[in-house]
Amino acid sequence: MNEHWSGLEQSMRQQGIQTLLITDPKHVYYLTGFLSNPHERFLGILFQPGNEPILVAPALDEEAARAATGNMEIITHLDTDNPYLLLKNKLHAPVGTVGLEKENLTVARFEQLQESLGFTTYHDVGPWLRDMRVRKTAGEIGKIRHAVRLIEEVLQESLKQVKEGVSENELVAEVEYQIRKLGADGPSFDSMVLSGEKTALPHGVPGERKLRRGDMLMFDIGVYASGYASDITRTFAFGELTEEQIRIYETVLAANEAAIAAIRPGVTYASIDKAARDVIENAGYGQYFIHRLGHGLGIDVHEFPSVHGQNEYLLSEGNVFTVEPGIYVPGVGGVRIEDDCLVTDTGVEVLTSFPKQLTYL
Amino acid sequence: MNEHWSGLEQSMRQQGIQTLLITDPKHVYYLTGFLSNPHERFLGILFQPGNEPILVAPALDEEAARAATGNMEIITHLDTDNPYLLLKNKLHAPVGTVGLEKENLTVARFEQLQESLGFTTYHDVGPWLRDMRVRKTAGEIGKIRHAVRLIEEVLQESLKQVKEGVSENELVAEVEYQIRKLGADGPSFDSMVLSGEKTALPHGVPGERKLRRGDMLMFDIGVYASGYASDITRTFAFGELTEEQIRIYETVLAANEAAIAAIRPGVTYASIDKAARDVIENAGYGQYFIHRLGHGLGIDVHEFPSVHGQNEYLLSEGNVFTVEPGIYVPGVGGVRIEDDCLVTDTGVEVLTSFPKQLTYL
Repeated sequence: MNEHWSGLEQSMRQQGIQTLLITDPKHVYYLTGFLSNPHERFLGILFQPGNEPILVAPALDEEAARAATGNMEIITHLDTDNPYLLLKNKLHAPVGTVGLEKENLTVARFEQLQESLGFTTYHDVGPWLRDMRVRKTAGEIGKIRHAVRLIEEVLQESLKQVKEGVSENELVAEVEYQIRKLGADGPSFDSMVLSGEKTALPHGVPGERKLRRGDMLMFDIGVYASGYASDITRTFAFGELTEEQIRIYETVLAANEAAIAAIRPGVTYASIDKAARDVIENAGYGQYFIHRLGHGLGIDVHEFPSVHGQNEYLLSEGNVFTVEPGIYVPGVGGVRIEDDCLVTDTGVEVLTSFPKQLTYL
Repeated sequence: MNEHWSGLEQSMRQQGIQTLLITDPKHVYYLTGFLSNPHERFLGILFQPGNEPILVAPALDEEAARAATGNMEIITHLDTDNPYLLLKNKLHAPVGTVGLEKENLTVARFEQLQESLGFTTYHDVGPWLRDMRVRKTAGEIGKIRHAVRLIEEVLQESLKQVKEGVSENELVAEVEYQIRKLGADGPSFDSMVLSGEKTALPHGVPGERKLRRGDMLMFDIGVYASGYASDITRTFAFGELTEEQIRIYETVLAANEAAIAAIRPGVTYASIDKAARDVIENAGYGQYFIHRLGHGLGIDVHEFPSVHGQNEYLLSEGNVFTVEPGIYVPGVGGVRIEDDCLVTDTGVEVLTSFPKQLTYL
C-alpha cells in the first residue's frame, strides 16, 4: 500500500469516514497506476481503513488492470453484472459514512450506490484528491516535461506543412499524425488550428478554410503521454499583418510575460490572472479577453486549480498550470499565447520553450 | 420551436414538471444544433412550458452558439460568473418540480442547482431524451451513413501502410491522419490497432509492437462527422494463421452474421446478443466472449441501448447499433468483427460494407 493510501486512511479517520469510493478514472490512475477510460462501465476503488484497497473494473480490462497494478486485489464485472452489488459483497466492515466524489459521481450512479450499499451519510472527498494531485511529484513533473517536449516537436514538424492554400483540417491532420508518430498516447484535447478571421473564435472548430497571405494562424494543441498532458498555443503571422494585429500580438505577449513574472509560491491564483488582465485592460482590449487565464495541468488537461480572478487559492511548489491570455476581436482576428508553468520553491519554471516573439511564416 | 420542444412540453405537463434542465452536451446538440464540449464549464438549456427554451453557454462559445442555433435566446457566463444564478434570473414561472438528467448531472452540480434554484422535487428526464434519440430520423441516418463511409475509406487507405515491421502506433498515426484528411470531425474514440498476441486484449492499447508474419491484425476505429459517430472493427491475417486462429475467425464471423440475421423490429436486444453468443458457445469459446454484443450508435459512439443478454427493450425502426462479437484467447489471439446496423421496417440494413471474409494481407 503506497503513501497515498496511508494519507487517505488518516483523513478518513479524522473525518469519521468508514468507506471510501474513488470513481474518477483519473484518480484511479493516480492511486493505482491503472489508466483507462471505462466509458459508461463502472470503474472504482473501494477502501476501508485497516484493509487493502480493492479495484473494481470491467472484465474486459482485467488483464490490463493486473499488469498495471501489480498485486492489488481486483474484482471484475461483466456487462450483465451489477457492479454495486459486487462492491457490497466486498465490504470488510459496516459501510458507515461514505467518502465519495461529488464532482465525478452522477446522480444516477450515486442513487444506485446508495441503494446497493445502504448508506445514509456521505462526505465529498474530491478536494482530498484534488489537493494531493495539485502538488506534483518529481516523477509526475518528468512525465509532463516529456509531454511538453513531444508537443513542441509536433508543432515544429507541423509548421513545415504551412503554405498558402493549406486548410485548417490538413494542418490538424498533420499535427495528429505527428502526435502518433512520436509515440504520444494521443491528443490531450481536440487539436485546434485556426486561420484568419476564425482566430477570433476562442473555441473555433477547424474546417476547410484555406490559408491566405495576411492571415494569423493559431495552433492550440497538446498530447497525453504516459497519462500526463501538455497544452500549448502559439499564434503566427502568415505574411504581413496590420498594425492593429501586431499591437494585439504584442499586448498578449506582454500579458503572458507579466503573468509568468508574477508566479511564485504563496501568492493567489487570482493575482496571476490579474497580472495578465491588467496589461490587456490597460491596452484597451479588456472586453476581448473573455476567458480565465489558465487551468491546472496534469493527469487531466484541465484540472484544479482554475486560474481566474476570483480564485484565492495559493500557489505552492509543484503546482503546474497554463498561462494563456488571449485577445479576440471579431473582424480583426485573435491571438493567444499559452505556456505550461511549474511553480518552484522560489518562483517559476516555464516548461514550454517554443519561441514566443512574433514569427512570420 | 421545433417538434422536439412540443413533445417535451407535453411530457412535462403529463408528469407535472414545471422546469426542464437539459445538461448533457449531446442532448443540447440534439435539441439545438449547437455541438460543443464545454469541458468543466456549464452548458445547458432551461425550458418552461409556454416559453421559449433558453441556452446557457460559456461566453467564449457565444459566437459559435449563435451561428448554430439561429434565433434561439442565449445567455452566456464568464468563468467568474455563477451560471446557476443566471438560470434562476431567467425563470419565467416558479421553479416547481424540475426535470433533470440523473445520468449526466454530477452530485456536485445537482447540489449547486438545487441551492440556486431552490427546488425540492425533481424527476429524471434522461429516459425521455434517450427514447427520442434512439429512433433516428432520416437526416440523422444520413449523417451516420456519411460517418460510416468515411471510416471505411480510412480503413481502406490505412491498409496500404501494412507491411512487416510497421508498428501499431504507426498504423494508428496513419488512421488518424486519414480521418483528418477526409474531413471528419475526428476519431469517435481512441483508434485501436492491435497485432499478434495483443489482439487478445479487448481493450488493449496500441504501442510499439511491430507487425510480424503470422500475426492477426485488428483495427477498431471510428469517426465523428457532423456530430454523428461510426464504429467498425475488422481483423485481418498477416501471413498464415494457425488452424485454431482460423476456427476462431470463422466462429466470430458466424456469430456476427447470426446476430444480424436476427435483427427486426419487435424482438428484444437480448435476443440479438443471444443469437451471436449461442454460436460462440456452441463452438466452445463461450468463456472467451467477455463483453456485450454491441451498443447504440448516434451522437454518442456508445449510447442507448446496450446490446446485452439482459436487455428486454424492443428493437424498433430507426434504431442504430453495433454488432461486434469477439473471441479473445490469451496466447492464441483475438478476433472481433463489428458492423453498424440500422433497424428497418421489416428487418435490417447493415450500414458498414467493408468485406468480412478472412482476408490475408
